Amino acid sequence: MISQEEQKKYNDWVFQISAYQMALALISIDKMTVAPPAGGPYRDARTAWLSGEKFSLETDPEMFRLLARMKDDPDLDGDTRRAAFLNWQKAARTVCIPKDEFVASEELLNQAYDAWLRAKMADDYSIFRPYLEKIIENKKRFYGFRGSSASIYDQMLDDNEPGMNEAKYDAFFADVKARLIPLIQRISAVSPIDDSFLHRFYPAAQQKKFTNEHLLPYLRYTPDWGYQNETEHPFTYWTCEDDCRTTTKYLENSVTSSLFSTIHEVGHATFEHNIDPKYDGTILAEGVSAAMHESQSRLCENYLGRTTAFWEANFPALQKEFPEQLGGVTVQQFVRASNAAVPGLLRTEADELTYPLHIVIRYEIEKDLFDGRIGTEDLEQVWNEKYREYLGVEVPNSRDGILQDVHWSEGSFGYFPTYALGSAYAAQIVHKMRQDIDVDEALRSSRYDICMNWLKENVHHYGCRYDAPEIIRRATGEEFNWNYYLDDLEEKYTRLYQL
Amino acid sequence: MISQEEQKKYNDWVFQISAYQMALALISIDKMTVAPPAGGPYRDARTAWLSGEKFSLETDPEMFRLLARMKDDPDLDGDTRRAAFLNWQKAARTVCIPKDEFVASEELLNQAYDAWLRAKMADDYSIFRPYLEKIIENKKRFYGFRGSSASIYDQMLDDNEPGMNEAKYDAFFADVKARLIPLIQRISAVSPIDDSFLHRFYPAAQQKKFTNEHLLPYLRYTPDWGYQNETEHPFTYWTCEDDCRTTTKYLENSVTSSLFSTIHEVGHATFEHNIDPKYDGTILAEGVSAAMHESQSRLCENYLGRTTAFWEANFPALQKEFPEQLGGVTVQQFVRASNAAVPGLLRTEADELTYPLHIVIRYEIEKDLFDGRIGTEDLEQVWNEKYREYLGVEVPNSRDGILQDVHWSEGSFGYFPTYALGSAYAAQIVHKMRQDIDVDEALRSSRYDICMNWLKENVHHYGCRYDAPEIIRRATGEEFNWNYYLDDLEEKYTRLYQL
Repeated sequence: MISQEEQKKYNDWVFQISAYQMALALISIDKMTVAPPAGGPYRDARTAWLSGEKFSLETDPEMFRLLARMKDDPDLDGDTRRAAFLNWQKAARTVCIPKDEFVASEELLNQAYDAWLRAKMADDYSIFRPYLEKIIENKKRFYGFRGSSASIYDQMLDDNEPGMNEAKYDAFFADVKARLIPLIQRISAVSPIDDSFLHRFYPAAQQKKFTNEHLLPYLRYTPDWGYQNETEHPFTYWTCEDDCRTTTKYLENSVTSSLFSTIHEVGHATFEHNIDPKYDGTILAEGVSAAMHESQSRLCENYLGRTTAFWEANFPALQKEFPEQLGGVTVQQFVRASNAAVPGLLRTEADELTYPLHIVIRYEIEKDLFDGRIGTEDLEQVWNEKYREYLGVEVPNSRDGILQDVHWSEGSFGYFPTYALGSAYAAQIVHKMRQDIDVDEALRSSRYDICMNWLKENVHHYGCRYDAPEIIRRATGEEFNWNYYLDDLEEKYTRLYQL
Repeated sequence: MISQEEQKKYNDWVFQISAYQMALALISIDKMTVAPPAGGPYRDARTAWLSGEKFSLETDPEMFRLLARMKDDPDLDGDTRRAAFLNWQKAARTVCIPKDEFVASEELLNQAYDAWLRAKMADDYSIFRPYLEKIIENKKRFYGFRGSSASIYDQMLDDNEPGMNEAKYDAFFADVKARLIPLIQRISAVSPIDDSFLHRFYPAAQQKKFTNEHLLPYLRYTPDWGYQNETEHPFTYWTCEDDCRTTTKYLENSVTSSLFSTIHEVGHATFEHNIDPKYDGTILAEGVSAAMHESQSRLCENYLGRTTAFWEANFPALQKEFPEQLGGVTVQQFVRASNAAVPGLLRTEADELTYPLHIVIRYEIEKDLFDGRIGTEDLEQVWNEKYREYLGVEVPNSRDGILQDVHWSEGSFGYFPTYALGSAYAAQIVHKMRQDIDVDEALRSSRYDICMNWLKENVHHYGCRYDAPEIIRRATGEEFNWNYYLDDLEEKYTRLYQL
């Protein structure tokens, strides 16, 4: 039993945290999209202080005790108990960090983002390395405070995807490697798919026009609840279900880059948009885990966006925008080229088949980093070696190698594996979706909303109400099984390359 | 004497206020530029709560007592005493407002902005009126709490421009009307200046290109510390001297609209950028008063931007961007047309001569509103009558009439008069600047920075260190004298129309 007064205190506390969260989200979006860089130090110091205010609320001892009671209180409804549990768990993990260290670390992360961007532009890892070093040091120190018996990296994996750890990912990635590497090798032995027309010159302004006038409306991403901007590294952020922000990046030598990145990010945004609005402002109003979030973005990108049906609806308009570049190309050729498996340097540009190997590389590096087998001074060499070993490509520079991803500059470790796991969730979810509705017909007839509504009803609306395995169980009627994913890839690429 | 501990407490308090201020500024910029509207209610409620946190800090009783001591403490340096005084004054004016009422009022203002925008788009004052009614009610109530013997509108005028009141503005505007109305009438009797070529079709994308590639670099507004965006009502906002944001609005039937609005807003931004960085994050890091701020924006817009020398440097590029529209036009014709006195509906589009009459109209209406002579139900009629009386124009709709300005939706009353007063400050300041440096030569040779540096040294760098009359004294060696302004206008327009 909790008293009325306690309930009010709890509600106020939830609201206050959501206010700081909103402010921090908007400050972060501003920073990454438009903020004048010279004002960075001024903003970063104050942003860190605001993060500290949120931290103080989240780790408030009185509230911690109340949450501990609430999470197991049978008189409370399931939503409230779940929210209390998640809040309690978050507090339990962070309350051990001294506030001044937390604030300093937040300021460092803001600075590290700028340093990463500078380093990437200058193609010089040494600009970023000192920040990365310090971030890793902080991470180790903060995880140390928890006093858990699990390894640091196991804890990181669990933070991003509750229930996951090195042993489970090792098993998953062992299967991924065992089944996909031979497939990639077989493909490399046959003649490649011609995708040269995707890499003609596509002016950014025209790409943008197509995206705004055709793609976003098709995806039902409308300006009343979402907008799209441009950044070096595409992302999705939100303050509530009716306020989602995505970004993309236009490459003038690759027309599909921004197309698939847009479909991907709008997949994230649609997930947030479809969460039950009754959870707004609470800890439940968020995709339940990183992999569940990536499952939805990668489902949209790969299982919807890379199909013939999708482009039957969209290719004519694309062709009209780029008559010279795509004039003689058929939908079938375009889709085949968009799915060509070509081992490359960039994760975000990778095809569906080689993509998980980019993840394996990052996963293995992160493991070694946190288990102390390598240090930041070894990173670039290890990175380049693994790209040679797994993907057979030579990394020519830091920009397209070790500096390509934003994640580490944000202190995000243990996140990368969730991209691959999410792809596997997606495969299983799509399998069920295709039993329930005619996905191809929906895509072909510009009724993308039919697919989104299925996802809303079966996945999205839960938010954080259940954990990922339970949502998969509810959506598909089965336990999670990554064979759907590997089977799909084998089937698709055997067919595509007529192996 | 204040103790070391008190000094630290004060410094922390200043920093914390600046953190909330930054967050609120960025949230507000986001709202007005890109935020998806459906998320408005969620954001507005949380923004209001954050405003309340800032309010609590600003009116903290312990700090209020400390500030009262600090402002008169001879052991402290002048900067600190001045900052303490301004903080104390602000607290003294707001501490009387109950916090819950303050927070509710902030939320209302956020909603009112959206309602104003909706009303303007729908051309329907009745959508906005209930919000305006409530805003005025709140204002009257909050000013009532102060228990001042001055009238509410006198207090509002003083809040925007310390030292000003109705009596002083009445005297100023009496002179304005006495000297400018006859001049406008004399002009209306002679043949008008041909400005038709300014109103040909000017595609927004090309205007934007010229602004980004030529105008902004000429104005020394560089992306490291400032950016420009687009909004319905142009504004300037900032978080610190190295982070300024301006917006503009492109009208495709008026090429000069966005040009002069850009020069105006960048004038505000440059003022903030040039404030001594040692004041960063303190109450001194801001233009000292509304009129002082408008003096700098209007100085740039009118005394620099509307000169022949300015366009000798910039017209060739503009002509190159718009060869069809401006092909046969000379610099002299362009500048003459840009200065043509044509009584019109819109304040922000008004020429220098008729501009102050737009202000007189708003000033008289605000006086009547707060002295209880009219209510929000009378506003539209009174507005339209005054436009007929003072400017001889018929107001055809609400959009270009009572709904044209954003100010009242933000609860900003007593601000409009500062535009006219600021123009008068500007005239006097320019008079001195032209004695010290060769302004025309600087403009002609694309050395706008020479003018900005003069302003930095003589006006900008002070921030809030001195009040406006003192800054004018220091910059010009004289007391404020509005005859510079009226003399200038008489001389300029007599010459322009060869009266």
